[in-house]
Amino acid sequence: MERLQQQMKFILEVDKVKQIIRQTYLADGSRKENDAEHSWHLALMAVLLKEYANEEVDLAKVIPMVLLHDLVEIDAGDTYAYDQAGLATQRARETKAADRIFGMLPEDQGTKFRNLWEEFEAYETAEAKFAHVLDNCQPLLLNDASGGKSWKEHTVHKSQIYKRNEHTAEGSREIWEYMQQLIDKHIQLGHVIDD
Amino acid sequence: MERLQQQMKFILEVDKVKQIIRQTYLADGSRKENDAEHSWHLALMAVLLKEYANEEVDLAKVIPMVLLHDLVEIDAGDTYAYDQAGLATQRARETKAADRIFGMLPEDQGTKFRNLWEEFEAYETAEAKFAHVLDNCQPLLLNDASGGKSWKEHTVHKSQIYKRNEHTAEGSREIWEYMQQLIDKHIQLGHVIDD
Repeated sequence: MERLQQQMKFILEVDKVKQIIRQTYLADGSRKENDAEHSWHLALMAVLLKEYANEEVDLAKVIPMVLLHDLVEIDAGDTYAYDQAGLATQRARETKAADRIFGMLPEDQGTKFRNLWEEFEAYETAEAKFAHVLDNCQPLLLNDASGGKSWKEHTVHKSQIYKRNEHTAEGSREIWEYMQQLIDKHIQLGHVIDD
Repeated sequence: MERLQQQMKFILEVDKVKQIIRQTYLADGSRKENDAEHSWHLALMAVLLKEYANEEVDLAKVIPMVLLHDLVEIDAGDTYAYDQAGLATQRARETKAADRIFGMLPEDQGTKFRNLWEEFEAYETAEAKFAHVLDNCQPLLLNDASGGKSWKEHTVHKSQIYKRNEHTAEGSREIWEYMQQLIDKHIQLGHVIDD
């Protein structure tokens, strides 16, 4: 029972990710979404959009990866994609969080989760690249649906979005093409600043 | 691009599940959780607790099943586990919802999702039984953490919880044993009424 109790304690600890608020609004613009909702959305998208990955990807790896990729934010907080000061310290804050949070699991599962998170962060494997496509596409879909609400609030420039997505086409050319159409639309609408 | 657009439209439609509020409180009791958060939690639990399934289960089936099992509630609403009047009409409301929601997907994916939902509902395969273990265990963990908040609000009786869980041991004897210890604890604390 000791192993199961340790796992259950972790399962309760990660409940806190439901309270980590992101900068993206729900599709109807009513409120900002949290990391648990975001991660659920990515996992479902992985199932539906797998066919657009440039390389064959293993969903048995992609799905756990997206489910756990934001758990470090329980301690490190959400770092907004276009917050330069936050991005500078993000890795250090998140590594410390990973030590504590994944360290709560039985060693075999803690190592597995830590490795999946490091693989996501390293952005090298086909699975990591596809997970990043989803992680970048989902807020863009929500921004589009909410009339660019979060972009307008943060005065986001085209160059920032393109910088953020500089490797997205490596994961999926087709999804990146779709995303570019949405970005263009919101540049024309004045929700994203052309620079 | 037509297929991708149809998939993206579905992905935005299911954003609504983030606004379907359940009766269970977050672990810290601060607010009730929603279906997207709940489904994320189940998917992560599936990864961690697979080893306790009585029979070998295929996570490639269990995880999509738990990710999508509550999508019908976008139209049908959440039916509380102990709401007898609601439970009487639940199947009819949810079937109609499944027709509309899964019908938004390209036919191959709509059929796949519909079949996974029907498999969950039929409660017969090893994967469906394990998915139900998770679906019943997760709110119990949260209720335990929040001091039985939802049980107290709804004056829940032991017999109701046991009726709800009459097949839980078929999915996992060990998790059901763990759950029973939690239920007993809250009976002794007076949060669940012994009958």
